[in-house]
Amino acid sequence: MAETIAEIEERLDVLARGSRGLLRTRFETDPGRLARYSHRVAGIRFDLSRLDIDPDVMAGFGALAEAADLAGWRERLVAGDVVNPSEGRAATHMATRGTGPAPLVAEAEARGEAMRTLAETLRGEPIRHVLHVGIGGSALGPALLLDALGRDADGPEVLVVSNIDGEALSRAMAGCDPAQTLLLVASKTFTTAETMTNAGSALAWMKAAGVTDLAARTVAVTAAPERARDWGAGHVLDFPDTVGGRYSLWTAVGLGFVLRAGWQAWADLLEGAAAMDRHFLDAPFEANMPVLAAMADVWAHRFGGQAVRGVFAYDERLRLLPMFLQQLEMESNGKRVDRDGQPITRPTAPVTWGGTGTDAQHAVFQLLHQGTVPGPVEFVAVRTPGHGLDGAHHRQLLANCLAQGAALMQGRDAATALSLAGGDAALAGARTFPGNRPSATILLDSLDPRTLGALLAFYEHRTFAAAVLMGINPFDQWGVELGKELANAVLGGGLAGADPSTAALMREALG
Amino acid sequence: MAETIAEIEERLDVLARGSRGLLRTRFETDPGRLARYSHRVAGIRFDLSRLDIDPDVMAGFGALAEAADLAGWRERLVAGDVVNPSEGRAATHMATRGTGPAPLVAEAEARGEAMRTLAETLRGEPIRHVLHVGIGGSALGPALLLDALGRDADGPEVLVVSNIDGEALSRAMAGCDPAQTLLLVASKTFTTAETMTNAGSALAWMKAAGVTDLAARTVAVTAAPERARDWGAGHVLDFPDTVGGRYSLWTAVGLGFVLRAGWQAWADLLEGAAAMDRHFLDAPFEANMPVLAAMADVWAHRFGGQAVRGVFAYDERLRLLPMFLQQLEMESNGKRVDRDGQPITRPTAPVTWGGTGTDAQHAVFQLLHQGTVPGPVEFVAVRTPGHGLDGAHHRQLLANCLAQGAALMQGRDAATALSLAGGDAALAGARTFPGNRPSATILLDSLDPRTLGALLAFYEHRTFAAAVLMGINPFDQWGVELGKELANAVLGGGLAGADPSTAALMREALG
Repeated sequence: MAETIAEIEERLDVLARGSRGLLRTRFETDPGRLARYSHRVAGIRFDLSRLDIDPDVMAGFGALAEAADLAGWRERLVAGDVVNPSEGRAATHMATRGTGPAPLVAEAEARGEAMRTLAETLRGEPIRHVLHVGIGGSALGPALLLDALGRDADGPEVLVVSNIDGEALSRAMAGCDPAQTLLLVASKTFTTAETMTNAGSALAWMKAAGVTDLAARTVAVTAAPERARDWGAGHVLDFPDTVGGRYSLWTAVGLGFVLRAGWQAWADLLEGAAAMDRHFLDAPFEANMPVLAAMADVWAHRFGGQAVRGVFAYDERLRLLPMFLQQLEMESNGKRVDRDGQPITRPTAPVTWGGTGTDAQHAVFQLLHQGTVPGPVEFVAVRTPGHGLDGAHHRQLLANCLAQGAALMQGRDAATALSLAGGDAALAGARTFPGNRPSATILLDSLDPRTLGALLAFYEHRTFAAAVLMGINPFDQWGVELGKELANAVLGGGLAGADPSTAALMREALG
Repeated sequence: MAETIAEIEERLDVLARGSRGLLRTRFETDPGRLARYSHRVAGIRFDLSRLDIDPDVMAGFGALAEAADLAGWRERLVAGDVVNPSEGRAATHMATRGTGPAPLVAEAEARGEAMRTLAETLRGEPIRHVLHVGIGGSALGPALLLDALGRDADGPEVLVVSNIDGEALSRAMAGCDPAQTLLLVASKTFTTAETMTNAGSALAWMKAAGVTDLAARTVAVTAAPERARDWGAGHVLDFPDTVGGRYSLWTAVGLGFVLRAGWQAWADLLEGAAAMDRHFLDAPFEANMPVLAAMADVWAHRFGGQAVRGVFAYDERLRLLPMFLQQLEMESNGKRVDRDGQPITRPTAPVTWGGTGTDAQHAVFQLLHQGTVPGPVEFVAVRTPGHGLDGAHHRQLLANCLAQGAALMQGRDAATALSLAGGDAALAGARTFPGNRPSATILLDSLDPRTLGALLAFYEHRTFAAAVLMGINPFDQWGVELGKELANAVLGGGLAGADPSTAALMREALG
C-alpha cells in the first residue's frame, strides 16, 4: 500500500532529526551531486547543490509529490480547472503566455491583441509620462519589469505609484507634465482604496492643469471593466478574474512596460515564461527546477524549522526582485489552513527577505555568517553587465556573489581563527565561522526579456509546487481582509470596542 | 544572594513556556497596561502595549538588566571606555551629538566645526550634484537622511552610490554634469573595495569630461585621513575609529545632507539625538523606551523563539528605515559568541525585515495575519504629512496603520468567520484569524530633523541594550571578513580547493 502523506512527513521528520553530514563533504561522498542538483534551463543556470538536500531527502519528497498528487495539480492548473477552491476559481496565468488548452490561450491572445492595438495607438500620441497607479500585484510586477528591462528603453517614462501616502503620488506628479501624461489605473476589482484614491487625485491634478480630454488620457486595466467605464476610463483593458493580482504582470497590467520598451520586448518576455512553463510541465521531477527548488524550500522550513529564506540579487537591475518574491511567496503560501480550510499545525511559508549584493554584504551578512538564524540563502546574478563601465566592476560583483556562497558553506574553523587572531582566544571566537550554511545560486546568461520571463515563471511554479507539497491553496489571500475591514471602521468614525492602545492611538493620530 | 544570569534566563524560559493569556484580555485584567508600556519622548509616542510583555516578564528583565550590568555598560559606553573588546575600542557615537565627557565632546565639536567650514565653502561653489560614494554604514544612514528630510531642500542633489555593480554608478553619473559635480568618498578605512573602485571610476569620468581640478572637487570622509590624502582627495574630513560604520551618520559622513539641507537641519538632527541620549541615560529602566523595547525584543527572539522582527514604515519618507535597521540590528547583534568570544547557545538577533505601508498590506500581510511565522511587528508612522494632497490620503494611511495592529491582536474567531462564509465550513477556515499577534507602534508628531534624530538614537540605544541583555559585543562585525577574503581569492586567480559548485560557477560566470 502506498504511504500516506502523514507517513511520508514523519519519514522526513526522522531524516530532519538525523545527521546528514557537512554540506561540503557531501560533494566528496557523492561525486554526482553537482550534476544532480544543477541544471541549465532557458538561459539560466540553477545550482541547488549547496542547499541542505541529499538523495534520501529528495526520495522522501519524490514520494510526497506522488502522494500529494503534484502531477495532477499541475495538470489541473494548466487545464484551467478550479485550483483555488476558496474562491471557486481556476488560475490561468499560464494561458497569458500561450501555455494551456487552445480556448484559454485563444482568449488570452485576444486580450493581448487588444493591448497591442491600444499600445500602438498610444505610442503615436505625445505622451512623455505614464502614471501607473496600482498596488500589490498591480504594482510590484510592472515596477520590476520597468526597473530590470526598461532603463534604457525609448518609450515614455513610467512612474509606478502604489502607496496611499500622498507623498508617493505628489512626488511622481512633480516629475510629470500633466499635458503629456497618460494615467494607467490597474486594479483587479477597481475598488481598491489606495488605487481609487490615487487615481482620483491624479485626475484632479490633470484637470487643474487644464487637461480636458480626461477620458482619452485614462486607461483602466481590470477584471471589472464595467466598473472602470462607469468610473470614466476612456480605454479599458480587461483580464479574467482567474488571474490573481500577483500573477497579473503578464496581462495588460504590463501595458506601461509595453509603452516603455515596445511590443517585441513584451513578446520575448512571454516567450521566456512559456519556455519555463514547458520545462515545468514536461521535465521529470528529478530534473525539474521549480519542483526541485520547491522541495528544497519545503524541506528547509517545514521539516528543518527555518523561519526565513533570504534572496540577494547581485545586480542593481534586479533590486526589486526580493520585494516581488516577498509577495509571490508570502501572500501565496503564508497560510494556516489546508486546501479544505482545515487548520494545519506544520509551518507554511517562511518570511522571504533579502536585498541587493554587494550592498547587503556590508549590512546584513554578519548575521548570515555568524548569526543564529541560518535559513537558506539564494543568490541571483547575471553573467553580463548592462553598463559600459570598466569590467572590474562586474568581475568584483560576480566574484563576491560566488565567494559568499562558498564562505557560507566552508566556514572557518577555530584553529585557523586562533592563528589569525595571533593566539588570542577571545578574538578567535569572534573570527570563527560555523559554516555549513546552505545557499542556492541562480545565474542568468543575460538580463533580457526572455530570460527574465523564464526566471519569473520559475518562481511562480516553484511557489505553486511548494503549495501542493504543503496541501494549501496558494491562490487566495483572505488574510488581508480583516485589516481592510478595521481600517474602514476606523475611518467611518472609530472602531467600536477598540482596545485601549488602538483607542489612544486613534485619538493621537486622527484627532 | 543575587540571581545569576543563567538563573534569570531559566526563570524567563519558564515564563515563556507558560501561558500568559491573550494579549487583548491583558488590557482588561491590567488597567495600567497602556500607561505602563506607552510613553512620549522627544516628540514621539512609543506604544509597546500590544507586544507580548507583562509585569512578570518585565520583572525578569529588570533582574536580567541588573545581573548583566546594563547601567554599568551604559556608563562605560557614554564615558568612552572600551565597550568593543574584540577591537579594543570605545564606541563614541554619542559624543558626536554632544553627549558624554567634555574632552570627547570637544573633540567631536572640533570635527563638526571643520565639517561646517567645508560645507560653507562648498555651498558657495557652483555644485549642482554630489556623488556620495560609500557602502554599508557609509551609505545607508546618509541615504535615509536625504530621503526622509532632504526631498524639498534647496541644496545640490545628492546621489548615494554604494554597490560595486557599475549599473549603480553609471546610472547616477548619467544624471550629473561632471563639471558641476562634487565627489564625496566615505570610507572608514579608505580601503573598501566597492568604494575605492566606484571612486576611481567617478574620477575617471570627471577627468574624461575635462575636469582639471580633481583634487578640489573631491572630499574624503574617513578614519584614515593619511590614506585619503595619498589617494588624492583635496578635502579630508576625519572621524575617529571609535565610531563604527553603522553609527557614522552623525559624523562628516553626513556632509551630503548638510550640503542638501543646510546646517540648521543638521544641528537639529544632532539635538534630537541628544535628547534621546539624555532619556536613555537618565530615565529609570521601567520608563526608558530604548531599554523597554530591547527587553521586549530579547524576550521575543531569545525566549519566545521568534526568528524575525518586522518593521513597517507607514510613510514614504521613511521607506529606507527598514533597510537602515536591518544593518543596525543584524550587523550589531547577529553574533554567535559572547563578549569574551565564547560560543553561546541561545539565539541572538532575529532577521529584521519589513517594508512600507500601505504597500506591504497588499504584498506580505497575508503571512502576518495568517501565516506561521508570528514574530513581532513594528509600525512607524507620522501624524502630519509632508505633501499637500487631499487629507484623505493621510487619514487613510494612518487609519490603516492603526487598524493593522488592532487586527493582528484581535483576530477573527471561527464562529464569525463561519457566519461571514455563509455557513461554508471550508471557506470559514480561510477567513478565520488566530489573532493574538504582537505589534508595537511608534508615532512621530512630525518628520523633522529633530524627531528623526531622536528616533534613530532610540534605535541605536535599543540595539545596544539588547546586546548587553544578551552579553554580546554589538560593535564589531567579524562575520563579514571571510566572504571578503574568498572574494579576493576568486579575483586573484581562483580559489584553491574550491568546492565543485563554486568551481563550476566560477568557470561559467568568470570564464
